[in-house]
Amino acid sequence: MRISELASKTGVTLPSLKYYLRVGVLMPGDATGRTRAEYDERHVERVRLIRALIESGGLGIAGVRAVVGAIENPPESPHDFLGTAHSVVPPPVEPSEPTEELEALVRELGWSHCVESRLVGSLARAVADVRAAGIALPSADLRGYAKAALHIAEVDVAAAVAAPTPEAALHTVVVGTVMVDSVIVLLRRLAQGVVSARALSAPDSSATSPPLSDSQ
Amino acid sequence: MRISELASKTGVTLPSLKYYLRVGVLMPGDATGRTRAEYDERHVERVRLIRALIESGGLGIAGVRAVVGAIENPPESPHDFLGTAHSVVPPPVEPSEPTEELEALVRELGWSHCVESRLVGSLARAVADVRAAGIALPSADLRGYAKAALHIAEVDVAAAVAAPTPEAALHTVVVGTVMVDSVIVLLRRLAQGVVSARALSAPDSSATSPPLSDSQ
Repeated sequence: MRISELASKTGVTLPSLKYYLRVGVLMPGDATGRTRAEYDERHVERVRLIRALIESGGLGIAGVRAVVGAIENPPESPHDFLGTAHSVVPPPVEPSEPTEELEALVRELGWSHCVESRLVGSLARAVADVRAAGIALPSADLRGYAKAALHIAEVDVAAAVAAPTPEAALHTVVVGTVMVDSVIVLLRRLAQGVVSARALSAPDSSATSPPLSDSQ
Repeated sequence: MRISELASKTGVTLPSLKYYLRVGVLMPGDATGRTRAEYDERHVERVRLIRALIESGGLGIAGVRAVVGAIENPPESPHDFLGTAHSVVPPPVEPSEPTEELEALVRELGWSHCVESRLVGSLARAVADVRAAGIALPSADLRGYAKAALHIAEVDVAAAVAAPTPEAALHTVVVGTVMVDSVIVLLRRLAQGVVSARALSAPDSSATSPPLSDSQ
């Protein structure tokens, strides 16, 4: 197909497509003339991936380039899939110095080998930001969130393992790490309503899990 | 304190503070002269909240204004805390039409009263985006994520209930809904490393939960 058809098929404007070609995140079409090239389904898929990473993943063009680069040049050892995913996808929060509290939490959870990860520094910054905004966020709550995160990660890793090829596994890990965040964030908000409604309707709610209205 | 001291105490520039005053997200100081005003700790706290919402929460100034408005004018019934939180905080994904798959999932989970929520529409869009990006994301995985989200929400609701006043509860719900997302996203990435490492080191890993390397 011509580039104009690629544009109408993906809903992306011609100038945007030309920009993606120029910065190298969209691979060139097959040249069929001095100013013409032919595009195919691979290009449609790539454009959809780029839009998804930008719109749902919240990535900038540098992040898109890093993800596309990882998919085009997968790491030599598939053991490195997660490391690659975490290095190409910019952490949602700039790392600061890890705190003793977080290092202790990570050890207590049996996540000791993560202590070195710069993600612990990002987590330290995110926790400090939450507290600076006036939310108590006690260590016990962090432990609760960490245990829920393990359940999430079990689904993530199983999905990557189920992928038919190493390339597909890498795609699942890298793209899924960014894009499934939105799904989880939305499920969390829906679940808040569910838990709150259960607390309000439970007959013994005041004894176990008082509803929000009890605070008045 | 003078506005210049407020600037140095919060690390926010004078032009930014004046902008926050102009758009009404920072309350005016006590006028002590024609061009002078006195600020106090409440202003320091508010500026920190604004910066946290922008930097960690990823909110724009309209989102900040909505959050601040909800905190200054709490809903009449504290039952509305979660509704208020979800209405002032823009969903991370624009809603589309809810799909039959998601409505069925929500009912199956016992979340039926959520079917009407526009969050289900946002979730439908987020799920469609993930799949358009080439990730399978079967319904079973969504169920797994939803169950993990319930554990997260239990911590969220308990934290709001533990707040000393309705205002504090609202603050926890509104600000915590936005800002704790980053904490959860980071814990998910750390947990991915933990689950993957466990799969790799488990002696019977090939039988139960094969490591990522098995896909090659």
